[in-house]
Amino acid sequence: MDHLRLLQEINATVQFNQWAGLEVRSAEKGQVELALRWKAELGQYSGFLHAGLIAGLIDTACGFAAATVVGPKVLASNFSVNCLRPAVGDMFIARARVIKPGKTQVFTACDLYAVKDGEEKLVANGQTILIVAN
Amino acid sequence: MDHLRLLQEINATVQFNQWAGLEVRSAEKGQVELALRWKAELGQYSGFLHAGLIAGLIDTACGFAAATVVGPKVLASNFSVNCLRPAVGDMFIARARVIKPGKTQVFTACDLYAVKDGEEKLVANGQTILIVAN
Amino acid sequence: MDHLRLLQEINATVQFNQWAGLEVRSAEKGQVELALRWKAELGQYSGFLHAGLIAGLIDTACGFAAATVVGPKVLASNFSVNCLRPAVGDMFIARARVIKPGKTQVFTACDLYAVKDGEEKLVANGQTILIVAN
Amino acid sequence: MDHLRLLQEINATVQFNQWAGLEVRSAEKGQVELALRWKAELGQYSGFLHAGLIAGLIDTACGFAAATVVGPKVLASNFSVNCLRPAVGDMFIARARVIKPGKTQVFTACDLYAVKDGEEKLVANGQTILIVAN
Repeated sequence: MDHLRLLQEINATVQFNQWAGLEVRSAEKGQVELALRWKAELGQYSGFLHAGLIAGLIDTACGFAAATVVGPKVLASNFSVNCLRPAVGDMFIARARVIKPGKTQVFTACDLYAVKDGEEKLVANGQTILIVAN
Repeated sequence: MDHLRLLQEINATVQFNQWAGLEVRSAEKGQVELALRWKAELGQYSGFLHAGLIAGLIDTACGFAAATVVGPKVLASNFSVNCLRPAVGDMFIARARVIKPGKTQVFTACDLYAVKDGEEKLVANGQTILIVAN
Repeated sequence: MDHLRLLQEINATVQFNQWAGLEVRSAEKGQVELALRWKAELGQYSGFLHAGLIAGLIDTACGFAAATVVGPKVLASNFSVNCLRPAVGDMFIARARVIKPGKTQVFTACDLYAVKDGEEKLVANGQTILIVAN
Repeated sequence: MDHLRLLQEINATVQFNQWAGLEVRSAEKGQVELALRWKAELGQYSGFLHAGLIAGLIDTACGFAAATVVGPKVLASNFSVNCLRPAVGDMFIARARVIKPGKTQVFTACDLYAVKDGEEKLVANGQTILIVAN
């Protein structure tokens, strides 16, 4: 099965991702793209995308990118996220890539964009370390 | 108004927190405790609490702890989270505290516990830097 | 051999620590204390302790704390450091502790204090993930 | 004065950088490159580059990159470093860039390469948040 279909099948089993509306847009070896359409339940107190969703998108994108290289049995060990600008948009796009795969650890990075009126703006970035479960 | 009631009022305006079921349990100057009851929609692919909820709890608890010291106009700038053990439980408790308040930045830390059969276990910890909005 | 003497022997083989003047003050299972006396060569452009030394102290203290629990074959995988206040003092004290030991990963945390006129002030804190080498 | 000469002058005033042998190789708006030649005093217990030097290089490169955009009065607030591979080489190259400049905070990122037998290998990466001092 190709990476995209495998990740879409995994995504379909994650209840939180289904509730949020997270979609796997593209996937190839070492990189993936996720999308999330804005809805009011995803917001924090100012109506920006909630940090839980920012982190959830970045962590999921990083985990899926790792899965394209070492297989789906990965668990996040640490993630660090920078909130660069207010996360406001009609749609959010997370693009993650593998920086360094290893036998026990996979290092990944992700950029998160908000799309508004057809224009993308970088609103957050982050890095995730995943442990390969044996 | 006391810290607890102010934070409960803010929490009631955060749609994501309401959907998830996040409650403010206690708050005093420099520290707060939040609770979240498990439900299946909060899960990732193995049925553990999703990283988005782990981050959402830690980030919210840290932001609320900061609010008890510098007021509610704070925005997370960076958060770093360690996933120490599988986050499995009937209930999750986040305890955050202010490490160092400042005029432009507030440094905070948080421990996240899973409660199962009445016993607490540390499942994640993290630190958040908040910017005081002017 | 007890933890303190073992760590002092390891410390004596680390050329950078010897140059800097880093001392292991105390060590017991799961926690250690290091000290570093100020000298001008340790400074950055404002005369504060250089970030390389802040990180070097925190990383070394965390690694030594991990070594007291899982043995000396550990390697830092990620460290995240907050610079809370200008690191100015006659002496610096790093106190690290193990948060969660594991078979492949050890999670640790450290507080760094500057001592001036006999008074300690928290100037930085950090967390380090170490991988147990096999 | 151009960016390169200004940063070389600042670097010449940093005692730790002078001791270590850190050089500013190139600088333009938003990005810089630093170099450090290996010597035994820079090592940790296995003879790899010490975490203090890894962090010192990344933090300095990030601070210098920020300085090319917002001026030299910047202070690191948080840095997070991943140790991807053993840092072994004759020479180390740090390449930093500004991700997002702001009025109070500047977000930066850095890749650290070891050079051995003329070949570059990525050994660490990191991100630094700097506060603009007023």
